Amino acid sequence: MSVSIGELAVRFGCELRGDPGVQVERVASLAQADAQSVAFVANPRYRAQLAATRAGVVVLDEASAAACPVAALVCANPHALFARIAAVLHPAPAGPPGVHPSAVVAADAVLDPSAHIGPLSVIGSGVVVGARAYIGPQCLLEDGVRVGEDVRLVARVTLCRGVTLGERSIVQPGAVIGGDGFGFAQEAGRWLKVPQTGSVRIGADVEIGANTTVDRGAIEDTVIEEGAKLDNLIQIGHNVRIGAHSALAACVGVSGSTSIGRRCMIGGQVGIGGHLSICDDVMITGCTMVSHSVTRPGVYSGGIPLEEAHTWRRLVGRFKRLESLAQRLKALERHFVSAQDLEEDDD
Amino acid sequence: MSVSIGELAVRFGCELRGDPGVQVERVASLAQADAQSVAFVANPRYRAQLAATRAGVVVLDEASAAACPVAALVCANPHALFARIAAVLHPAPAGPPGVHPSAVVAADAVLDPSAHIGPLSVIGSGVVVGARAYIGPQCLLEDGVRVGEDVRLVARVTLCRGVTLGERSIVQPGAVIGGDGFGFAQEAGRWLKVPQTGSVRIGADVEIGANTTVDRGAIEDTVIEEGAKLDNLIQIGHNVRIGAHSALAACVGVSGSTSIGRRCMIGGQVGIGGHLSICDDVMITGCTMVSHSVTRPGVYSGGIPLEEAHTWRRLVGRFKRLESLAQRLKALERHFVSAQDLEEDDD
Amino acid sequence: MSVSIGELAVRFGCELRGDPGVQVERVASLAQADAQSVAFVANPRYRAQLAATRAGVVVLDEASAAACPVAALVCANPHALFARIAAVLHPAPAGPPGVHPSAVVAADAVLDPSAHIGPLSVIGSGVVVGARAYIGPQCLLEDGVRVGEDVRLVARVTLCRGVTLGERSIVQPGAVIGGDGFGFAQEAGRWLKVPQTGSVRIGADVEIGANTTVDRGAIEDTVIEEGAKLDNLIQIGHNVRIGAHSALAACVGVSGSTSIGRRCMIGGQVGIGGHLSICDDVMITGCTMVSHSVTRPGVYSGGIPLEEAHTWRRLVGRFKRLESLAQRLKALERHFVSAQDLEEDDD
Repeated sequence: MSVSIGELAVRFGCELRGDPGVQVERVASLAQADAQSVAFVANPRYRAQLAATRAGVVVLDEASAAACPVAALVCANPHALFARIAAVLHPAPAGPPGVHPSAVVAADAVLDPSAHIGPLSVIGSGVVVGARAYIGPQCLLEDGVRVGEDVRLVARVTLCRGVTLGERSIVQPGAVIGGDGFGFAQEAGRWLKVPQTGSVRIGADVEIGANTTVDRGAIEDTVIEEGAKLDNLIQIGHNVRIGAHSALAACVGVSGSTSIGRRCMIGGQVGIGGHLSICDDVMITGCTMVSHSVTRPGVYSGGIPLEEAHTWRRLVGRFKRLESLAQRLKALERHFVSAQDLEEDDD
Repeated sequence: MSVSIGELAVRFGCELRGDPGVQVERVASLAQADAQSVAFVANPRYRAQLAATRAGVVVLDEASAAACPVAALVCANPHALFARIAAVLHPAPAGPPGVHPSAVVAADAVLDPSAHIGPLSVIGSGVVVGARAYIGPQCLLEDGVRVGEDVRLVARVTLCRGVTLGERSIVQPGAVIGGDGFGFAQEAGRWLKVPQTGSVRIGADVEIGANTTVDRGAIEDTVIEEGAKLDNLIQIGHNVRIGAHSALAACVGVSGSTSIGRRCMIGGQVGIGGHLSICDDVMITGCTMVSHSVTRPGVYSGGIPLEEAHTWRRLVGRFKRLESLAQRLKALERHFVSAQDLEEDDD
Repeated sequence: MSVSIGELAVRFGCELRGDPGVQVERVASLAQADAQSVAFVANPRYRAQLAATRAGVVVLDEASAAACPVAALVCANPHALFARIAAVLHPAPAGPPGVHPSAVVAADAVLDPSAHIGPLSVIGSGVVVGARAYIGPQCLLEDGVRVGEDVRLVARVTLCRGVTLGERSIVQPGAVIGGDGFGFAQEAGRWLKVPQTGSVRIGADVEIGANTTVDRGAIEDTVIEEGAKLDNLIQIGHNVRIGAHSALAACVGVSGSTSIGRRCMIGGQVGIGGHLSICDDVMITGCTMVSHSVTRPGVYSGGIPLEEAHTWRRLVGRFKRLESLAQRLKALERHFVSAQDLEEDDD
């Protein structure tokens, strides 16, 4: 794919400084770009690297433009414009319309003729696949699954019975959407499986990462709203709701029946308990344990950074004796000051 | 599937209050139930919702029965009875007996004629599949695998060579049972793979969640006893033993050679070190690090709940200076009280 | 497979004490070994078990040899020698050279005639597979993938387009190498996907665990150097670099653009932030949060061991009031000692 930077400027409505006839073919980093490459600067920290770049054109904002020694596409949001240009130069691999002969497709599945069904995929009874959808190799769409237009299941995606996936959503390999929720009743010291009769509804423009698991609801559905982005190896329990445009980094676990609001950002390895509610516009930094609901927008944390092991062991020792430390302080206070002045905080 | 609530009362030996001829077809929540739905109340917190329900029948205990405006199935354990009724109304999808023509089956595999082998599954040499087992689409049973009667491999399950799985056990999509344990010998600054020659033995009535991994033993077997329930994205290292009827929530990691007792409950994202022993009847709450053995039944914890980031940063700063805080307290004590009274706890 | 212990001694250049004609067929633990078994003692802790062993031969070092009641193979590194003997007695299952008829292979794939392509695997356009490679059942090698000689993809491995894998590397089932990195630009309150145009390059002698995910680079490649070992359910973000001979235990998450040095050892469930640098020869114990770079070799920690829930709750309560505790101590100091002596550490 080759395109002139003049065409890019017109197509995306941004200002071009330089020769519109320059042809570009790929994206690259500032350091590795050649004359056929598009690079970008979104963070002023990287502006110093501009001087040495040999890119065909650099996408940047007004503040960086003066420092650019090559052609520049000047815009307010260089990262977003770069993403759009990358999508032009590096379109996602497409497959030919139609069903690969090795796929196993139920007679009553309704597949848009423009959709691609990859090799060794299995399409169950009553499945509906929208226009231009890409169902990669070795995918499984169980009975009753519905996927919208322009959906992209990269490869080896499992959509269990009845799951719905909105248009333009993308699922990476190994993801399992609609496995049974973890629901058991106790009876005489044993666990009795509670059939999970809900499903999973996923909105438009959602992305689900590799080997992520989204459980079907116990009775009602698990829901992921439009525009939410889930990284790899995330666990979403039954009857969870993820609000629109929220982003969850890798290895997050969300326990059953918890609701996360819109535009939240959840850092890696965050663990969120069950039956909680996180309001809109909450950011939680990585490795945090969330054991109560969050009702005010803001940034929340719960992880303690590493130390050299020797130092850390001493700190943990001190932590484990905090009760004693507090008692000792209280004793000192009792001996030397009037109790009512200093003990208010103590129990 | 439609059944009268009179039949349900007879079948499960519980008391019916209401018209036995009411026909029900599905389960539903109290709020969404219609006249063909069965709902339930197991927790008194939800009793208030009874007033507005339009369910055909509600499963509940004696204490809730008086508040029920519709027919009631009265029993001592409503959650368990609800589970049993749900299994009647929503049986797990079955497949026709026999082998799908697209499956690849070794000539010497021994498949019960009543078992179902789904499309694009691979069945290795010497595999044994019991009566009424359901092997879903795209599963892999490597050489020598044995699965018992009424087993259910939902889809895309990997059972590596020699793994055994007891009757009625269920494995969700993407689970990998019997991958190599993480065993390496150090030699001249490199890692030398130690062949993992053990296998995995899984008892009856076990459930294994989506994308969970259970490693084969280094020499002897990894063992999961009957009735244990493992949620999604759990890692079970080589030579671990999980006791009967224990339940592990999602994202738990259990390191090699650790033994977990019977009837334990392990919360989400708990990390358990290697070569440890957790006794029977231990509950560990979510996000806990387990770095030593647990020898007494009880409840254990290790996670610290989140705070607003600003507050948390101050707390972490205080934590990192705990050593100094303790030294300052000690200095005060030395100045003002007799040392022998207060320093016993200090090192 | 049966071999005499005399042959083993010659082959591996170690000292044999005992009858060279003893035939062995398998490895076993000291406790379960019979006369056809090879056992080993690498850790002096297990030396006491020697007395009761019925093994055909035991691999051990000079210090343990005197206590061995049966034949002994004496060497400096018993664990490594045991690994080599186990590889002789228990070779990894091989497949016949050639392509299984159920596999789907692009016409222009270049497959060494000695390579095995298992049932229901998919091999894309331009793929290159080296000599003696074992591509197990249900694997996917997308367009442009290159795997070296003697590679072993156990089963159901996904290598996305363009990924390269060095010779002798092993990938366990369910691993996904080359899924899209988690890259999005913000634009008007929504996330815009940034095409991930880099790939993944994996060196020789690497092992990747079951259901582990390694994301492709955003622009440049994600890199795993030779000899690195990754356990199960690990997440490697885009543009991460893992240095040679480093070992990562299960459930570790490494965020994007972070570099880990050579010969590092990362414990289970460690979470490592993005854009960090961990130098060579760093060991990080399990459950640690790494939120800043590590520039000196050594051992680092960050997890706090569990307590009984009651005790833990009190400790957490004390932790949450650390600020108040510190203020109270400061107040005491102010009342009773000269401020300049004791307040240096306080803010």
